[in-house]
Amino acid sequence: MNGSEGGGPEPGAGAPGPWPGEPESFQEMWRGLAPLGLDRGSGGYRRYAWSGADAECREWFRAQAESRGLVHEVDRNGNQWAWHGDPRAGDAVVTGSHLDSVPDGGAFDGPLGVVSSFAALDELRRRGAEFVRPFAVVNFGDEEGARFGLACVGSRLAAGQLTVEDAHRLRDGNGVPLPRAMEAAGYDPDAIGPDPERLARIGAFVELHVEQGRALDLSGDPVGVASAIWPHGRWRFDFRGEANHAGTTRLADRRDPMLPYAETVLAARREAELAGGLATFGKIAVEPNGVNAIPSLVRGWLDSRAADQGTLDAVVSGVERAAREHAERAGIDLDVVRESFTPVVDFQHALRDEIRRVLEKRGRGGADTGGRAVPVLGTGAGHDAGILSASVPTAMLFVRNPTGISHSPAEHAAEDDCVAGVRALADVLEGLACS
Amino acid sequence: MNGSEGGGPEPGAGAPGPWPGEPESFQEMWRGLAPLGLDRGSGGYRRYAWSGADAECREWFRAQAESRGLVHEVDRNGNQWAWHGDPRAGDAVVTGSHLDSVPDGGAFDGPLGVVSSFAALDELRRRGAEFVRPFAVVNFGDEEGARFGLACVGSRLAAGQLTVEDAHRLRDGNGVPLPRAMEAAGYDPDAIGPDPERLARIGAFVELHVEQGRALDLSGDPVGVASAIWPHGRWRFDFRGEANHAGTTRLADRRDPMLPYAETVLAARREAELAGGLATFGKIAVEPNGVNAIPSLVRGWLDSRAADQGTLDAVVSGVERAAREHAERAGIDLDVVRESFTPVVDFQHALRDEIRRVLEKRGRGGADTGGRAVPVLGTGAGHDAGILSASVPTAMLFVRNPTGISHSPAEHAAEDDCVAGVRALADVLEGLACS
Repeated sequence: MNGSEGGGPEPGAGAPGPWPGEPESFQEMWRGLAPLGLDRGSGGYRRYAWSGADAECREWFRAQAESRGLVHEVDRNGNQWAWHGDPRAGDAVVTGSHLDSVPDGGAFDGPLGVVSSFAALDELRRRGAEFVRPFAVVNFGDEEGARFGLACVGSRLAAGQLTVEDAHRLRDGNGVPLPRAMEAAGYDPDAIGPDPERLARIGAFVELHVEQGRALDLSGDPVGVASAIWPHGRWRFDFRGEANHAGTTRLADRRDPMLPYAETVLAARREAELAGGLATFGKIAVEPNGVNAIPSLVRGWLDSRAADQGTLDAVVSGVERAAREHAERAGIDLDVVRESFTPVVDFQHALRDEIRRVLEKRGRGGADTGGRAVPVLGTGAGHDAGILSASVPTAMLFVRNPTGISHSPAEHAAEDDCVAGVRALADVLEGLACS
Repeated sequence: MNGSEGGGPEPGAGAPGPWPGEPESFQEMWRGLAPLGLDRGSGGYRRYAWSGADAECREWFRAQAESRGLVHEVDRNGNQWAWHGDPRAGDAVVTGSHLDSVPDGGAFDGPLGVVSSFAALDELRRRGAEFVRPFAVVNFGDEEGARFGLACVGSRLAAGQLTVEDAHRLRDGNGVPLPRAMEAAGYDPDAIGPDPERLARIGAFVELHVEQGRALDLSGDPVGVASAIWPHGRWRFDFRGEANHAGTTRLADRRDPMLPYAETVLAARREAELAGGLATFGKIAVEPNGVNAIPSLVRGWLDSRAADQGTLDAVVSGVERAAREHAERAGIDLDVVRESFTPVVDFQHALRDEIRRVLEKRGRGGADTGGRAVPVLGTGAGHDAGILSASVPTAMLFVRNPTGISHSPAEHAAEDDCVAGVRALADVLEGLACS
């Protein structure tokens, strides 16, 4: 929160490269991002991949990098990097997150990690820390998947977890293919693809993120460390009936797919409660979607997650069984398609334990964490860190979210907790990258 | 089906005005309309008010009128008329329907009435019938309300049942106001408004329509007469919860509006079964409608209809009660807004009885109706005839629909039944308009 106070830049003190001006403080960076992609009507952010708002966020990132004398580059997949030291030396320490948003998202999911990364670098320079490994701040492109329906496109491509062919087939809600959207934003869609050489230069990646639940609020800690990302996936349920006139078709003659859809929504909640997992129907598409028309198609998407694979399987198979029973009873055809699936991600134990040791020893995680054990949390949300963890030692820090609300304009983190997050990240980076 | 066979035009025989050429037969007219506004993907029609497909249908109507020597005119509200005889003489007999469609609608709803009207005129000319009253075929504009959300705009405006101010406020799904859409189609939106003088010249209006249920199929009759249009309305249910991350928010911390929506869909079916009415949730809008987002808003539209007001009240109040109970239990705010309502329309008994007498006497309703009683049916669907019935003696004929399917590409009437419909309409018009 405090990037430029308490002493100016000391370019000689272990901070190679120029530091052209006074960098913006945490608050100034936050204020600079605040208007970008803000929808005045909803109060939420609409920072979709390759949109105008996305370009503004990218320009903001470039300016922050350059004001700190970092070397700015954009990789073949559109991810932005800001380097301190020579990446070719290898074993680099990288931190960062993303700047894009879900539809009408909050201010913290993604940007808190990027802003905290720059602020942590400023803190290290203030401390006079000597970097002994190359260091970078990264902004991964299209993390939320709000526009093209697939999350973490930038990191997936780099890690070879999304093929170029599949990426080229992605289309947004208006039918615009990803390659056309990239071109319109000034990027080359034919350049995208796996980037193993770049990933091989990274010795550790740490992502700071606002918590998307209430575990830290309930435990009373400002900062925690990630243990694992829950296995999670998306399943599309297509209920197909028969379009007909809502005002003239006898109930007995109807094949209305809205009825088994409604039963399935309720079954999903029951199955999740029963098994101790999560299940949500948050997206729906109806055809013809007319007030006086019985639908021909109700398409609902199930998002389900759980702490372990067995629980997730129990939830999803229970929902599917209920859907099939109700569809059959109503004379409705049902197709269930698994659109995406990510198995459990267990973050590297060695890095996680090192981070806990650093935080517990330095006690800089916040006023009340000195000496206390730092909580280790699982999370149901996917992250670029989860994608990278297959290629690179990866860890995550979470900052307390007092309501747990996420993907909403009400998403929040208190200023003191943001300060604690920056300090904790600086401690971790100092432990990893500095002598 | 058979408009121009069995003898050519006989302009001298009671058919005032020129008959410039051989008019198209029923089949030829049907073939001419078939490609207009057809969506190849869905196999359904998209003939929306003031669109390009609408303009093509209007041009088709003008050509049909002129090929029969009828005087074509468009009234101030965009309804098309094709006159035989001088309308200023008053006490005119008018028949017709509409050419626009619901999204992905069928071929018969509307066009069957317009095509049958022209074919019935051809049949009367073949019979050598002498017209003693002015006669017209009409195509009412924007009957389905598919684009601007309000049905029967053309007839409502003419009958003074929709104010100019309210009409000017209508917007389509892309935000285009009705006046701009009319201008783009070459019409003057400032000319619209009540047309009492025009309606006062009409002595009787008869609309032929494909049945939108299975009553005639079940009774084994090709043609029936309408008794009444059921009272019907649209209610919007806004369930407001709290957007949140579907992967990280504990079930206990959620305020998910999809759950009470689902309960309400199921309650609507139960209440309709219980009371003997109809209730449908066929349209939904969800915000933010993301796979991994608990919705902040689920907006569902209830369409409900019943044979009488008491039954309709019982259904709607039962659905609303269930919605409020489930919303409260889930911590969801609920607003219920009645967006439109049409009370019961009882068609004029004198005209209806006269039509039944004509049909039963002549026995021309179809091969098997000679001498049999013609069924009299209520309907849950709104029609221009229902709007006009407040100003003009009005009746409706229904043609059998073997499956009852309507507002769908599967909507159908057999060729023999279409022939029976044309003959029945010709009989009725002959009885009303000819000496």
